[in-house]
Amino acid sequence: MITEKNRIIRSVLDIAAAVGGRIKGDKSLVIKVLSPIESKTANSLTFLSNKKYLRHLYGVNNRAILCHDDVIDIPEIDDTLIIVDDVYAAWSIIQKLFQGNDELTFEISDRSVVASNVLFSPRVSIGHFVVIESGVTIGDETVIKSNAYIGKNVSIGSNVTIGEGVKIFADCKVGDNVTIQANSVIGSDGFGYHFIDGRYHKIPQTGNVIIEDFVEIGANVCIDRASIGSTIIRKGAILDNLIQIAHSVEVGEHVAIAAQAGISGSSKIGNYVQLGGQAGIAGHVKIAKGNKIQAQSGVAKDIKSENGKWYGYPILSYMNYLRSYALFKKLPEFIKRLQYLEKRINQMSEKDSQ
Amino acid sequence: MITEKNRIIRSVLDIAAAVGGRIKGDKSLVIKVLSPIESKTANSLTFLSNKKYLRHLYGVNNRAILCHDDVIDIPEIDDTLIIVDDVYAAWSIIQKLFQGNDELTFEISDRSVVASNVLFSPRVSIGHFVVIESGVTIGDETVIKSNAYIGKNVSIGSNVTIGEGVKIFADCKVGDNVTIQANSVIGSDGFGYHFIDGRYHKIPQTGNVIIEDFVEIGANVCIDRASIGSTIIRKGAILDNLIQIAHSVEVGEHVAIAAQAGISGSSKIGNYVQLGGQAGIAGHVKIAKGNKIQAQSGVAKDIKSENGKWYGYPILSYMNYLRSYALFKKLPEFIKRLQYLEKRINQMSEKDSQ
Amino acid sequence: MITEKNRIIRSVLDIAAAVGGRIKGDKSLVIKVLSPIESKTANSLTFLSNKKYLRHLYGVNNRAILCHDDVIDIPEIDDTLIIVDDVYAAWSIIQKLFQGNDELTFEISDRSVVASNVLFSPRVSIGHFVVIESGVTIGDETVIKSNAYIGKNVSIGSNVTIGEGVKIFADCKVGDNVTIQANSVIGSDGFGYHFIDGRYHKIPQTGNVIIEDFVEIGANVCIDRASIGSTIIRKGAILDNLIQIAHSVEVGEHVAIAAQAGISGSSKIGNYVQLGGQAGIAGHVKIAKGNKIQAQSGVAKDIKSENGKWYGYPILSYMNYLRSYALFKKLPEFIKRLQYLEKRINQMSEKDSQ
Repeated sequence: MITEKNRIIRSVLDIAAAVGGRIKGDKSLVIKVLSPIESKTANSLTFLSNKKYLRHLYGVNNRAILCHDDVIDIPEIDDTLIIVDDVYAAWSIIQKLFQGNDELTFEISDRSVVASNVLFSPRVSIGHFVVIESGVTIGDETVIKSNAYIGKNVSIGSNVTIGEGVKIFADCKVGDNVTIQANSVIGSDGFGYHFIDGRYHKIPQTGNVIIEDFVEIGANVCIDRASIGSTIIRKGAILDNLIQIAHSVEVGEHVAIAAQAGISGSSKIGNYVQLGGQAGIAGHVKIAKGNKIQAQSGVAKDIKSENGKWYGYPILSYMNYLRSYALFKKLPEFIKRLQYLEKRINQMSEKDSQ
Repeated sequence: MITEKNRIIRSVLDIAAAVGGRIKGDKSLVIKVLSPIESKTANSLTFLSNKKYLRHLYGVNNRAILCHDDVIDIPEIDDTLIIVDDVYAAWSIIQKLFQGNDELTFEISDRSVVASNVLFSPRVSIGHFVVIESGVTIGDETVIKSNAYIGKNVSIGSNVTIGEGVKIFADCKVGDNVTIQANSVIGSDGFGYHFIDGRYHKIPQTGNVIIEDFVEIGANVCIDRASIGSTIIRKGAILDNLIQIAHSVEVGEHVAIAAQAGISGSSKIGNYVQLGGQAGIAGHVKIAKGNKIQAQSGVAKDIKSENGKWYGYPILSYMNYLRSYALFKKLPEFIKRLQYLEKRINQMSEKDSQ
Repeated sequence: MITEKNRIIRSVLDIAAAVGGRIKGDKSLVIKVLSPIESKTANSLTFLSNKKYLRHLYGVNNRAILCHDDVIDIPEIDDTLIIVDDVYAAWSIIQKLFQGNDELTFEISDRSVVASNVLFSPRVSIGHFVVIESGVTIGDETVIKSNAYIGKNVSIGSNVTIGEGVKIFADCKVGDNVTIQANSVIGSDGFGYHFIDGRYHKIPQTGNVIIEDFVEIGANVCIDRASIGSTIIRKGAILDNLIQIAHSVEVGEHVAIAAQAGISGSSKIGNYVQLGGQAGIAGHVKIAKGNKIQAQSGVAKDIKSENGKWYGYPILSYMNYLRSYALFKKLPEFIKRLQYLEKRINQMSEKDSQ
């Protein structure tokens, strides 16, 4: 690997070696950048995961393509090919190569305020303008970025990244290998009030949030602490940006939640469930394992069967929603046909009675 | 009260005294933690608000239950009971007991930047990395958390909590007993543009935001300043997380807005209105007092009658939406019946004409 | 212009001169504040853009109105009038007059951390508690507000405002005359995962975000970097608050996106498109130029025709949605009519067969 003005440059040969791939074409071709298949940049590497994008391969020079061997015999393609069995897995490795590796430096900024009884290994990085309250524990190789806030008695595992401006409030627990992106808020007070004598009285929110291992959380996400007990995000769950997780919710293992979805208080989302963007889950709802909720859908009741696909507001089964909606579009026609029938029957009935 | 490794521990006797409750069972039982009824933790206290959760009471030792006296004679329950008239009210008191009281220390962090002409009582707390601009006034016992920003001439009342990372821009006014949670933005510029000669020209947003007393605002909320005049959140209103309040909106007294709901410019929300999660209100709409808008619903026109319940996109009355939606689900069947009728009428009419 | 306790005060004569307007009434009237037409504040100036607000003009003293000349002859109006051809354009000028001009002071806070190889002109302002990483370039008269974070190799043009708490991550590019409001996150990692062996594996997100000239971005917005290549916001686009722009999206020139709308990965939004609040666009969708998507609508497929208006979930043409929805409301009635027809046909058919 050489670098040119801070840029990482590698040959096709190096790259193929890194992913265990075979080369067809110019082994010495230099790759300066990874690019989308449409972009046709010289000295770039892209990947072909699906033959429907084949048309993008024509007429480009000095480019390399990461692909399966089913492309190898197409004669019109001039690109240099790196042929592998698993394109996605190889692409992930290559992306890491090109990301460079900002070597982690384990420093505690002296512009930050860290309470005296915080426990952390020497291999921890704490950025500028961070506040870490008393009783916090932080695992090995964990990075806390600038302007973050870590409340009292929070525990954070190893190999965790806490993004810039993230706030994690008292008593919350974050496992190992977790990423929380910028400006997300973990452990805010839940939206719990009694309505007495014409006004709302806050119910103290004394629980916490538990984020298990390998969870990934996007930017500007809110996860409220439980009123009592814990709001839990189980291991391997992935959350996109701008998501709302209310108090006492449980998000199961390997759940995927797209941006702007929201889950109301005390609902339980089973393992491997997928929520589309802007989907909404009412309070106290249980969704069984493996169900997929389409974007913008609303779930107001338990889903007891597993692995279904759901759509609508409130949800129907995916196919039923599409069927009904296809007919909804044609309602003007159907109503006309209904009116015409009424007219004909009236005529027939008049005729009959004559 | 004794403490054990920073934990607050109380006896059932102490707790019953604090809430004026009667005890049935072990007066000396020590309570270490509040817990949800399902969790069956030893030395915990939970509450029973509804008999449908009775099944959770069996087979737990060393636990206490806060409840009404209608549970007292159920023989199978071994738990120690604290019996009160108003379970919710008592629970709130107990939660406060167990929250501990981090005694407020009134300090101004020397890591913060406070303009010279800011007016505040000696009983104010300002966290680290805060910026407070000139002309700001701050009331008694108000707490400004770390990384917050308070713009020029903002006034903030007494007993207010401004959360970590909150930004409040110039000329906004915050009343007494207000809470604003982390990373919310108050007084951002509204989304106002003229479209002239093929592009958007910003309309200066010269108004402010007024937040009256006893308002509670969640995390990552946006409340835009009025273009002229004021965006107003009236007293006692409660706002969950990730809510959008556009410029020149008025939110009435004791309005409750669930997470991810949005209100477009210049709309007026009457007192005691409730907006469900992800509900959307168009611009220049008035909603009369006491109306309830279901989650994800869309309000495009004024609601002039009071205390209604609404659902749909755009809204219908709640019952009408449910009725129509129940039939929407059955459209495939109805269309078949329509087609069958058409066929029969054609047959009858052919027969007739023979 | 004189000032009174920090307030800007001007006479009607001054104001009319600034906008090239004619005066009818009291030239020496002093204007202390701009106000909405309903507010009837003495010594205020408001504007009348539409005759339907005429009723607000009566019974107010010492107020001036900016208006067209079609109002001039209405006898009952006592207000002083400033008459112009283009009320909106004049109002924008006046608002700027009254905003005062906080003269920009070009200072770098010594409480901020700026890497040694950052390039910027002497005419740049950097607030407190800001972190600027190595390789950043910043144009003339650009302002970076407090608690912002600017990642490695980010380039920012001239006359840009980066709001308080905004995070812009490595390699992103921001053009000239751009505004990004508080707590928005630019260049967060996109939501890209492979699901292999029962769990999600993150796909490195190695692209960036490009924000072209004259773009305006609200508060708490998230714009993810492309997995490879660039997420692009083209010139003149305006984005409201709490918006999600996923990885590899392209937002066209002069697109307007209302609050809480979301665009999923790799979608392309044509020039002059308008997205209503809480609208959602699925992934890999193309929307042609000039289309308008109603609030809360869901777009799941390409829109190939230009300048359409769309509504629904998923979208139909605006008029078709309204037509179908009007009939949806009446489904209970239609089903009754269908049942009645069935009954009559059965009777007729019985009679026939007798």
